[in-house]
Amino acid sequence: MLKYQQIAIDIEKYIEEHNLQQRDKLPVLENLMARFNVSKSTITKSLDLLEKKGVVYQVRGSGIFVRRHNRKGYISLLSNQGFKKDLEEFNVTSEVVELKVCQPTEEVAYNLNIDQHQKVYYVKRIRYINGQTLCLEESYYNKSSVTYLNWEIASESIFHYIQEGLGLKVGFSDIYLHVDKLNEEEAAYLGLKEGDPKLFMESIFHLTNGQPFDFSKVTYNYEQSQFFLQANSHIL
Amino acid sequence: MLKYQQIAIDIEKYIEEHNLQQRDKLPVLENLMARFNVSKSTITKSLDLLEKKGVVYQVRGSGIFVRRHNRKGYISLLSNQGFKKDLEEFNVTSEVVELKVCQPTEEVAYNLNIDQHQKVYYVKRIRYINGQTLCLEESYYNKSSVTYLNWEIASESIFHYIQEGLGLKVGFSDIYLHVDKLNEEEAAYLGLKEGDPKLFMESIFHLTNGQPFDFSKVTYNYEQSQFFLQANSHIL
Repeated sequence: MLKYQQIAIDIEKYIEEHNLQQRDKLPVLENLMARFNVSKSTITKSLDLLEKKGVVYQVRGSGIFVRRHNRKGYISLLSNQGFKKDLEEFNVTSEVVELKVCQPTEEVAYNLNIDQHQKVYYVKRIRYINGQTLCLEESYYNKSSVTYLNWEIASESIFHYIQEGLGLKVGFSDIYLHVDKLNEEEAAYLGLKEGDPKLFMESIFHLTNGQPFDFSKVTYNYEQSQFFLQANSHIL
Repeated sequence: MLKYQQIAIDIEKYIEEHNLQQRDKLPVLENLMARFNVSKSTITKSLDLLEKKGVVYQVRGSGIFVRRHNRKGYISLLSNQGFKKDLEEFNVTSEVVELKVCQPTEEVAYNLNIDQHQKVYYVKRIRYINGQTLCLEESYYNKSSVTYLNWEIASESIFHYIQEGLGLKVGFSDIYLHVDKLNEEEAAYLGLKEGDPKLFMESIFHLTNGQPFDFSKVTYNYEQSQFFLQANSHIL
């Protein structure tokens, strides 16, 4: 980890420990430099990173302010860490329904940017929050990247394993979503009624080298899920 | 506009004109510097901005590649420009149902960070895409920021007016969403049935100085709307 990344984490801790709220002002640059004992260029890079992450916003000529969404229990749409982390205060568990190696359909191969002769891990899980169904998840992992998976790993956080166990570097992702009605099978898995609303989300997760490694389709229980995201201005 | 912002726009044009696709490689830095006749530090800043915007991704030691979501007709959840821009190829129109100045409820005052004695513009619109209902929108604009609105402006893009007409600088936004069933009134406005699915989205738009100026609640017609977003890795 680079110096400015560590300092960014330290500043987040500072915000946490001082219980700073949305619109609270951070100490001025000189104070931050002194407090964390780093150069102006390092602290500037740390603050830019935190701005990208939606942790602070900078107002030219006025200072750096805390950005803190203030609703609990919402799942971040921008987190690439899986939602276990957003819902830390809740009890999120997974039940693996199916786990196998197979050849991808045309749709899956297209989204993973592989050809249909290559292999994928297919994982189907039901995820629970505080004992209620949260979502039905079907994921396809490119086996050239995610070389090994088993039932036990799939019962926990697959993303944690991919990063810590396999040492893969998770990069950007593309997410598509729409709302529809549950079909009979989905309703059965989620304990809802056929025709009830669903949020259907397709995500393509890429490694930092740009290669897609996970194409996932998630059907959310509308009664148990709510989402937030933070958008930045792009000055363009 | 600063030099690097203009160059970023030029690089986007270059990608467009050369019809580059996801994972296509951009020319190396030296070539870009020569082509656009700028310094290395400028081209680097342009590319960083384009990476933030989800237009390119950079692979250390390997180059800069195009990132281009490849599904048409999806509304960007991260655009702060209103969705008219995403759906340019479609015919998006608005019907104003109500427009008035009023005092905010406690909920609205809280989300706009004002007190209940201050005034807001309330605008209720139905938006159409190719003649079909796209969404029902209720927006509350802080009247100290959005000092004037009328029926004609509300029939067009309010965000365009806010930026070009009033000269306000739109900054970051916080977005909350969940799925639910339409009530009778919503169903009537959208031409759907009570109990049909809806995507309900609340957004708080801020000026670049951090002050919220628009709190909006939008109920989407699930048959006409689909969304995408691009998430970046934050290396933290």
